[in-house]
This record gives sequence, C-alpha cells and structure tokens, in this order.
Amino acid sequence: MSSTVLTDLGLGTLPVFIDENGRIQLIDQRKLPETVEYFDATLFDDMLVAIETMVVRGAPSIGVAAGFSLAWEAARLAQVETDKNAFLKQLIAQGDKLKATRPTAVNLAWAVDLIIDRAKMAMGNNPDITTTQIADYLKIEAQQVMNHHISVNRSLSDIGAQFFKKNARALTHCNAGSLATCGWGTALGVIRSAHAFGLEPEVYVDETRPRHQGARLTMWELKEDGIPSTLVCESMAGHLMADGKVDLVITGADRIAMNGDTANKIGTYNLAVLAKYHKIPFYIAAPLSTVDAALKNGKGIPIEHRHESEVLMMSDRTITVDGARAYNPAFDVTPAKLITAIITEAGALRPDYKKSIAEAMKTALK
Amino acid sequence: MSSTVLTDLGLGTLPVFIDENGRIQLIDQRKLPETVEYFDATLFDDMLVAIETMVVRGAPSIGVAAGFSLAWEAARLAQVETDKNAFLKQLIAQGDKLKATRPTAVNLAWAVDLIIDRAKMAMGNNPDITTTQIADYLKIEAQQVMNHHISVNRSLSDIGAQFFKKNARALTHCNAGSLATCGWGTALGVIRSAHAFGLEPEVYVDETRPRHQGARLTMWELKEDGIPSTLVCESMAGHLMADGKVDLVITGADRIAMNGDTANKIGTYNLAVLAKYHKIPFYIAAPLSTVDAALKNGKGIPIEHRHESEVLMMSDRTITVDGARAYNPAFDVTPAKLITAIITEAGALRPDYKKSIAEAMKTALK
Repeated sequence: MSSTVLTDLGLGTLPVFIDENGRIQLIDQRKLPETVEYFDATLFDDMLVAIETMVVRGAPSIGVAAGFSLAWEAARLAQVETDKNAFLKQLIAQGDKLKATRPTAVNLAWAVDLIIDRAKMAMGNNPDITTTQIADYLKIEAQQVMNHHISVNRSLSDIGAQFFKKNARALTHCNAGSLATCGWGTALGVIRSAHAFGLEPEVYVDETRPRHQGARLTMWELKEDGIPSTLVCESMAGHLMADGKVDLVITGADRIAMNGDTANKIGTYNLAVLAKYHKIPFYIAAPLSTVDAALKNGKGIPIEHRHESEVLMMSDRTITVDGARAYNPAFDVTPAKLITAIITEAGALRPDYKKSIAEAMKTALK
Repeated sequence: MSSTVLTDLGLGTLPVFIDENGRIQLIDQRKLPETVEYFDATLFDDMLVAIETMVVRGAPSIGVAAGFSLAWEAARLAQVETDKNAFLKQLIAQGDKLKATRPTAVNLAWAVDLIIDRAKMAMGNNPDITTTQIADYLKIEAQQVMNHHISVNRSLSDIGAQFFKKNARALTHCNAGSLATCGWGTALGVIRSAHAFGLEPEVYVDETRPRHQGARLTMWELKEDGIPSTLVCESMAGHLMADGKVDLVITGADRIAMNGDTANKIGTYNLAVLAKYHKIPFYIAAPLSTVDAALKNGKGIPIEHRHESEVLMMSDRTITVDGARAYNPAFDVTPAKLITAIITEAGALRPDYKKSIAEAMKTALK
C-alpha cells in the first residue's frame, strides 16, 4: 500500500492515503494500537461517518481527509453533471455536509473552502473547462493539501525544537502526531525533530480521557520512533510539575483565533493553567491553516459536545452506575495569555499575538 | 446483616462492619457498583491483603478496619499468650504490619496507635487484668473508633454545609463518602448535609483515574441518596470552571500536616490550582484524626506509588502499547495556601492554619 512507502520516508504512519486502486483509505484510529485496520472512505457518505465517529481524527488529518473526499466527490458529480454552475452548487452543498461533521477544528472548513476556491479558480481561468477536467484538477489539489501539511509540519517541528534543551522532559496531551496531522506531526512533530537532532527528549503522555488518544495513539507513535515515554493520567500533571519533572508542555491545536486564544482537546486548558502556576513554558504547535482569520478571539469558537456515553463507558464497559449523567465537551479554549509561544511554519510566534499572528498570516497558503 | 440496620440509620452504606457471627466484614469496593459483595477480613492476614488491594479504601475507613483487625488479632493472641508484656509486644508488631500496607493515609497509623495505647492503658489501670480481658476491652474500643468516625463525620458535615448556597454546584474528586469514611462521609458528607438541609446541591464528580473511585463509588452513593450528579473526566475541570459551572470544590484528605498542607488522592492538587486561578473556593473536609501532629508541613508526607498496571490497564484490558511505562503516584499534596478552609468536627478552620489547627487539635480524640 502507498502508506508503506510514505512510512518509509520517516514521516510516521499516514492516517489518510490513496491506495493503488485510487481509493481513499483511512487507518482506523479507533482500533489502534491493538490492530492496524484500514477503513475505505472512498464513498462520500462513508467519509462523513468516518469523521463523525473518529475513524480519522486530529484537526489537520480531518482537513486532508475532507480535501480528498470533496475532490473524489467532484469526480463522481462530474460523471452525471456537465453544467458547471450546477456542478459547483452541488459541490458546495457536499462541502457543507463535511463541515458539519465536526464543528471545532477549523482545518476541516479550511480544506473544504480551499477545494471550492480551486474549483472556482479553474472555471475562471478557462471558460471551456469541463466538469471532468475540474474534478481531475481538484484531485491534484487535494494531494497538494496533504503535501502542504507534511511540509509545514516538518518546518514548524524543526523550528520548535529550539525549545528543547538536552534531555528535556515534555508533557503532551492527546495526539498531535503523524496520525493527527498527516505526516510527522505538530506537537509530536516538534518532539520528533528534537529527537532527530539528538536532543534525547523524554515524554510524559496524558492518557487523554475519555477517548485515550494519548494512551492509544501518542504512546504508539513514540514507541515506533523509539522515543522514551511514560503514560500518566490527567490527574497527575500538577504533581509532576510540582515535583520538578516537567520542563515544558506542548500540545497541538484545533482552532486558533487571531488574538492567540486556542481551542484544543479538552484538558489542554488545565495544563496551561498548571504550567503558568509552576512557571513552566506552555507551547502550542500548529500550522497556520489552524488559524481562523474570521475569529477575533476564543469566545467565538464552537465547542463540540460529544455523546455522554464516551465518559460513562470505557470501550464497551460501563464505569459507573446505571442511569448516570455525564458531561462531555470535546475541546476547551486556552486563552492567549497562558501560551508562551505558538510554533508555526512561519516561525515561533510570541505575544503580542494579535500582531505576530496577523504578520504570519500574510505568508499562509490561501 | 448488620450493615442493613446501619444503612437504615441513613448513614449510607457502611464499608466495614461486624456481622452477627462476630466476623469482620468488608464491602468489596473493587466490585462496586456492579455488585455488592462482602469480603471476610476476620483473619489478620486477610485484612492486610484487603487494605493493600483496596477492597477497603478511604483513609478513615482504613483506620476503622485496622482498628477492628488489631482488636480481633488481640483476641487471637490472648488465646495463646497469657504473658501481658509478650502479648503487647506481639500486638505492636502486628500493628506495624498494618501500618505498612498503605503509607500515605494517617488514619491507619492513628487507629493502630490508639488500640495499642488503649492496651497499655488497660494494663496500667489494672495490674491483674488478663490478656483475654484486654482483648475484650480492645474490641469495644475498636467499635468506639467507628462510632467516633460516624459522630465526627456528622458534625463536620453539618458545619461544612454553611458553604453551600441554595443549588450550589460542587465539584468533588475521588470518594469521600460513607464508603471511604465509615458512615455519612466527609466531603460527600458535607454534600449530604447540604442536601438534608434542603439546599439542593448538584455535584460534578471527577471519574478519578486510574481507579475510578468517583465514577464507581461517589456516583453510586449520590444515586442512592437521590442527589443530582454529573460524571466528568479530570480533564474537564478547568473548562467547567471557566464556564461558570462550579461554585465550590470540596474533597477529603488522607493526611494533613500541622501547617494545613494536605495529601489527598492524586488530582486534588490540580483542582486546587485551577480553583485558585478561577477564584473558586476550595475546601478540605476531614476529621481531626487525619491531622498528623508529627508533621510540620507537607514535605514529609510519604506518597504511595502504586503499580503502573493501574494506569496501563482499565479493568483487565490494556489501554496502550505493549511494554509501555507508566507513572502512578496515588496521592499529591495541596499546599495550605490553596485551601479556603479545612472543615473539621471542631469547626471550619481558616488560615493561619498553624494556629487554627493547633487550637483544634486540643479537642481531638487521643
């Protein structure tokens, strides 16, 4: 499979790829680390399910998957629709369905909008273009979205490694590795780069209740790379910090507002407050595609609430009394004032974030 | 069983009791809430296992169980040993074995020392006393340890209810209910008292990884009492607080130093820091038997580290990669400066804790 080749490039395991038959394949992240299974998401409706149920997760990976999905859907539409305006209208409607699957991560909307923009650009550049030609072009653009992610991940990761002293002990949350970001990683990419530079980092990995992305996915990626890791519960962060065992905290991001307020996996905000209290640096690592240019601050970020069964159960087993209620916000917002730096492909941005983010965004892919 | 009668007194389920055959019975807290099973801990060695493996847990309940166990062991020794000094020496050695089972909670040592002191007192008061008479007396004293706990729990709980406004939303961690404290509860006891006073409190319950005492035990006790509860993961505390959903945090304690530094279940310190950051009051509820008069501050509190399998597994299922390492401190220490008040049977103690605790300790059972 294509994934094997790409894995050999040292990017980690790619969660989204096109196989030799031209089908969209996802690594089923719900089943890691027990088994590596593939989920065929070539059919548009199957991709909607895959994103909703977290077969594919991680803001950038969702964006890449959505880009492929919309381009493949364009190819299907082109077979039955030769009228370009009708074609575009249907493509936009399908893009909206993708956007609705998960509301917090901005990369999903970013990728959908990019594909739609490219379709419009193709129509504008050549009045004689056919819907089939547009669809072929969009497939190339979708691949480019992926290449772009891998490229910026490598860039921001190498930039972020500057914050690692030799043998630094980093605490990370959730999974911001190659599985989440389609190659190398963001927060985990920075750790990978520090490792590649011979800085020998060690990692405390939050298990990340309720879905255990840290225990299942980050621990798996670190093991594959031979980076020393120790699994901890979220409850242990303060104790670890007070005990002098954490040199820095680093996480990814699902959406960053123009003032630096950052949405990420629930529990990130806890770590930011605890890091501040213990005077430990707290870093966000994310590509500029994670920045929502339309958002002034974090108040406008929609927080997805997922089904309470995720909290009430572990795998298929209940952990509490029958009839119990639970609360299950999937993300929280860390205010900019708690963030030491936001590590992007355009450099490590520092406060005042309003200025530094606006400046960096001039270089972002549109 | 005796537990049924005591449950009818409205104290919640008693985790330790003497059945109609004079045997020490424990509710097996590892099996709640799925099944209510009893563990016979009449034999001394069985009690050692029960405490180590957390059949019985919660600092006060462990103390009560240890008190019964040592008194019952005294009865066994009295059958084979009539020399009082030899009898006492053996009793002290067995007490030391009990103390070694769990190092952090002070109530265990407190109860053992109390039983030993009572044995000495009996020998001092009557030079002609037999070892059998001493053992009979110690059984009464062990029962008194339990009665004392129930009594002080009720007192401190009623005192603590003053911190609940109508419909207050409390966040609690682990289990400091009747299961942990042998009747009514400490942190959960305060919530029970607020409920009894018609203040209609609502409770957010931390699931309390890795052993899920919140999800399993606190949710169960609250359901039994009809107090509205919502299960959350530890990762959600900051988000809940920032969202204005938490009016106060209240937990129990395993050991309190003379300056107010408090050891409690791992994760308590996170909550204290988060509460401070959000200007939300943070209360500890515990009987004075939790205070370690020999400890100036929290630095001297030994932190029990439990087996890493508790973090690596959920029930009997692994949650991470093979060969993974984990870190598993069972407790953390919250510095006194983060604690709004320590609720005891001698009143709600306020800073300066050095003064208020020393004053309260004059009234404590010795």
